[in-house]
Amino acid sequence: MGWQKRILRVNLTEGRCDVEPLNMEWANNYLGERGLATKYLWENMDPKADPMGPENVLIFATGPLSGTMSSTSGRYAVVTKGPLTGAIACSNSGGKFGAELKFAGYDMLVIHGRAAKPVYLHIVDNKVELLPADDIWGTTVWHTEEWLKSHHQNPQLKVASIGEAGEKGVRYACVVNDLHRAAGRSGVGAVMGSKNLKAVAVHGSVGVSVKDPKRFMQAVKKTKDLLAKSGGRKGLTKQGTLAMIDAMQEFGGLPTRNFQEVQFEGVDKINPSAVVKAKRNGHVNLLTNKACFGCTIACGRIAHIDETHFTIVNRPEYRHASGGLEYETAYAFGPVIGVDDVDALTFANFLMNEHGMDPISFGGTLAAAMELFQMGVLTEKDTDGIPLTFGNPEALTVMAEKTGRGEGFGKVLGLGSKLMCEQYGHPELAMVVKGQEFAGYDSRALQGMGLGYATSNRGACHLKHDTFAEDMEDQSGNGKAVPCKESQDRTAMIDSTGLCLFTTAAWGVPEFCEQIDAACEGEWDEARLTEIGERVWNLERQFNLAAGLTAKDDTLPKRLLEVPAPSGTAKGRVAELGKMLPEYYAARGWTADGIPSNETLARLGL
Amino acid sequence: MGWQKRILRVNLTEGRCDVEPLNMEWANNYLGERGLATKYLWENMDPKADPMGPENVLIFATGPLSGTMSSTSGRYAVVTKGPLTGAIACSNSGGKFGAELKFAGYDMLVIHGRAAKPVYLHIVDNKVELLPADDIWGTTVWHTEEWLKSHHQNPQLKVASIGEAGEKGVRYACVVNDLHRAAGRSGVGAVMGSKNLKAVAVHGSVGVSVKDPKRFMQAVKKTKDLLAKSGGRKGLTKQGTLAMIDAMQEFGGLPTRNFQEVQFEGVDKINPSAVVKAKRNGHVNLLTNKACFGCTIACGRIAHIDETHFTIVNRPEYRHASGGLEYETAYAFGPVIGVDDVDALTFANFLMNEHGMDPISFGGTLAAAMELFQMGVLTEKDTDGIPLTFGNPEALTVMAEKTGRGEGFGKVLGLGSKLMCEQYGHPELAMVVKGQEFAGYDSRALQGMGLGYATSNRGACHLKHDTFAEDMEDQSGNGKAVPCKESQDRTAMIDSTGLCLFTTAAWGVPEFCEQIDAACEGEWDEARLTEIGERVWNLERQFNLAAGLTAKDDTLPKRLLEVPAPSGTAKGRVAELGKMLPEYYAARGWTADGIPSNETLARLGL
Repeated sequence: MGWQKRILRVNLTEGRCDVEPLNMEWANNYLGERGLATKYLWENMDPKADPMGPENVLIFATGPLSGTMSSTSGRYAVVTKGPLTGAIACSNSGGKFGAELKFAGYDMLVIHGRAAKPVYLHIVDNKVELLPADDIWGTTVWHTEEWLKSHHQNPQLKVASIGEAGEKGVRYACVVNDLHRAAGRSGVGAVMGSKNLKAVAVHGSVGVSVKDPKRFMQAVKKTKDLLAKSGGRKGLTKQGTLAMIDAMQEFGGLPTRNFQEVQFEGVDKINPSAVVKAKRNGHVNLLTNKACFGCTIACGRIAHIDETHFTIVNRPEYRHASGGLEYETAYAFGPVIGVDDVDALTFANFLMNEHGMDPISFGGTLAAAMELFQMGVLTEKDTDGIPLTFGNPEALTVMAEKTGRGEGFGKVLGLGSKLMCEQYGHPELAMVVKGQEFAGYDSRALQGMGLGYATSNRGACHLKHDTFAEDMEDQSGNGKAVPCKESQDRTAMIDSTGLCLFTTAAWGVPEFCEQIDAACEGEWDEARLTEIGERVWNLERQFNLAAGLTAKDDTLPKRLLEVPAPSGTAKGRVAELGKMLPEYYAARGWTADGIPSNETLARLGL
Repeated sequence: MGWQKRILRVNLTEGRCDVEPLNMEWANNYLGERGLATKYLWENMDPKADPMGPENVLIFATGPLSGTMSSTSGRYAVVTKGPLTGAIACSNSGGKFGAELKFAGYDMLVIHGRAAKPVYLHIVDNKVELLPADDIWGTTVWHTEEWLKSHHQNPQLKVASIGEAGEKGVRYACVVNDLHRAAGRSGVGAVMGSKNLKAVAVHGSVGVSVKDPKRFMQAVKKTKDLLAKSGGRKGLTKQGTLAMIDAMQEFGGLPTRNFQEVQFEGVDKINPSAVVKAKRNGHVNLLTNKACFGCTIACGRIAHIDETHFTIVNRPEYRHASGGLEYETAYAFGPVIGVDDVDALTFANFLMNEHGMDPISFGGTLAAAMELFQMGVLTEKDTDGIPLTFGNPEALTVMAEKTGRGEGFGKVLGLGSKLMCEQYGHPELAMVVKGQEFAGYDSRALQGMGLGYATSNRGACHLKHDTFAEDMEDQSGNGKAVPCKESQDRTAMIDSTGLCLFTTAAWGVPEFCEQIDAACEGEWDEARLTEIGERVWNLERQFNLAAGLTAKDDTLPKRLLEVPAPSGTAKGRVAELGKMLPEYYAARGWTADGIPSNETLARLGL
């Protein structure tokens, strides 16, 4: 009920695929998707393992509400140890792949080992096979998806795959599904590449049943109604996440030129107004919006790709429509590298989808390289003759292609900010937490965001907590610890349901609880769900501690801690982490060294 | 097996929806989709009924292979008495709607009567309801589909609906599903409008089972392999049907300026090369191709809509991507009205999808109006100040909007060529058979096509037979009757399976037979299938004869019969119908008056 109660365990080293029953005790304690995959990861590998070695375990997990009539039920998570961070990585994604995996009868794929040669996993309900990937290895995500559908002559196949970036170990390579959606962060695609696994292609025809269909449909109707009426939801439908860019510009929280500034003079050229206005060539950027499976929000964008940029890449045929700018891409290809050419941003975003790379980490790394170039540490001799000046759109598009293909200076950029900046003797320029680049919110303007970045188990991340309301209301570090902790737990629970975080535009814990309780056997109340979230968070922490991370990794770069914001509403302010972090540890029931106390572990059954 | 064995009968007058068993005797004799719907129509209405009256019956029908793993299994047909022709109308369509209707558990919707107020039909498996359409009546197809998905908060709903053209009785209004696909011809959308039925919205979760799953999957694999290897299929994938335009230009079979000419000087601006080249505004027209449900061909196109034209329509927000040019649209908005502006063609095509109109009939009617304008019979006083000169792109886009909305001269164009030309005293200018406008093949260059046009039961149509090979080989009327008759029967069978005619790029009767025999209970061989096709054709003929049509309606306009082709490979030739038609009647086993003989009827069990 909700769950299919079956997982598929794949041993790539041995070439075996076995179906086994889902551990229902774990499902009852960790729900699904992020939480349940974390438990499986914890039980199935040594956290000290090399993330790029065969002993790392790679999990694709759906939640109990994936594939149901709930709004946004298309989601799945990829959970593994991340090569960018050395910490636990959990990246989730929308599209249709997650629902399809569920329809094939599996809650989860648990993937061990490393194939001797490149393979892909082909699943049609009970038929599961590992097949040679010779024809698609070395090709793009888009080519891979088209080849698989064509080769198997099955247009209903849903595909999650890596591009060349994942094959070549770009530290922030991602897993892309349904062409435009990605499990984007922490390098989960590099892990897939290290296992010689090019793609998972799945087609399912099994239904998903729920405990109490009538009550479930009532809950679905009620919660969809709430979403339909929500102003936040309407904003997402109309403008997508890009709407954030004007607010952050005004607030002074928009990291610009590698966080040297917090407001960007070119924002009007890449904001929601710009993408619907006719551009210099008479065409508009934004073509339409697009929903993931079952989603009643439809925040996704499809944009026109201007072919001006095609000359820089050496491939014969192009699609002219691809994923459009979302806020984080607009930030990472815009302000933080100083570029305001919306066509270049859109084209680079398409290259991310083709090569399978995280735009946030790529943009962050390029921003650090640009600052090294600004300082004269890097010159055109190092950068294949391309001037890495802030604001140069060619640097963005050419380096996106080179990084995706593992060519020239792209190989350096593929290391990520932390290793690259260390290599050039300027580790202070890497704007990262635990090796992972920041999303587009400056911690000096949004203090709770800074605390969330510092404590996120997968490194700097804006999606594992939510203190926007508190941050907008009070720009000091006061009172941020408890909302940060509570929203982290709540988010961990939501990420374990199979639904999308953006439903929180209208839903709180009661709305998730109503749906879970109607779908899943057993008794579910808000307290139980909230505790699951906290349990998941603490188990992720346990994984990281066992992997060798410590409280010293719960920090922010010096620039945010010591250099005051130069403008905006937080002008003169630094990130007040020193104040917030002890309060946070206390709120979590952790020691002053950031270690969960025995009482906390016992309370959570860990 | 194959069939769901259930139909949904809807009486709009009484507001009743009843499920009844499929008549399996009829299914065994008429297969499904076009054939079976023809039998249901024949048994359920008086062929003399007013097509726009409540006594007309409107049928949405799937075939036994709809929704299966067969390639192109997304198709359905709309069968009714057509208001453009007064003859039986059968228009089929791709997209996803047909498969979804099958997944909801129905082979067919049989719709009677007329609702007192506008309604729509909402089907989720066994839940069927007629609901008020007040919020969508008077709005476009695109708005309707978005409203339905949003109102029911169910993004998985598949929608077939009419636009304003169908509501207002445009004689060639169509039913549009999945935004870009249409049951396009003969005014089936006007019938839906006359019944006050705005839309059918369906979501299904029932599987489709087949008789012998293992053998069926073997047949599917084999037939998909054939398609994959086929050169014809590859051409459709790469260039879509638009590829035809260069061949027809060279051949001299491309009707230009209302068939005054047969070659168009502007063809290079609207052909497959043109749509992928950068246009004057720096953007390309063709964005990507797109497949219907289960299709391994993907001939559909998605194009960029240039906003230059948006000023002519008074709606606040636009999509910038819509269905791209297929051959018939390119012909009907290009050569036959002398326009070579690819952006205008694409925009007008988008307006067809929004308002729900058949581009072939709209373009043909506009061509006739342009000739009336050329002759001085019409002036700008009649045409709302718009010069209807051949080659004027504004005439195309503005009149498309006016016709869709039923405004000004658009009301005249909405009558179709035949009534319009009669109204202005020049019936000879209407390039139609049985009141329906021609597709883009001139009968003087393609004689078998001319015979097919003249004898097609739904009026001039290029999709109910296939004599291309014969026509290209020999441009006389010799030896066309038998191939025309045989391909008409074969096509009637294919249109009854639930699959797409374009599979004939690689498949003949054996390939359909192999799939039907593995999917459907009973014994199926090629002879039985071919006979079903012939039975369907003859029953359509019986319907038309009963409706009052005679052999006199099996003719072509004087221009094709008497005015020789002015250029091209058939220069100097007229359509040799006088020779072909008697041979055709004989091949059919019909009398010299075009009436099926008693022997023929007895042989076919009619």
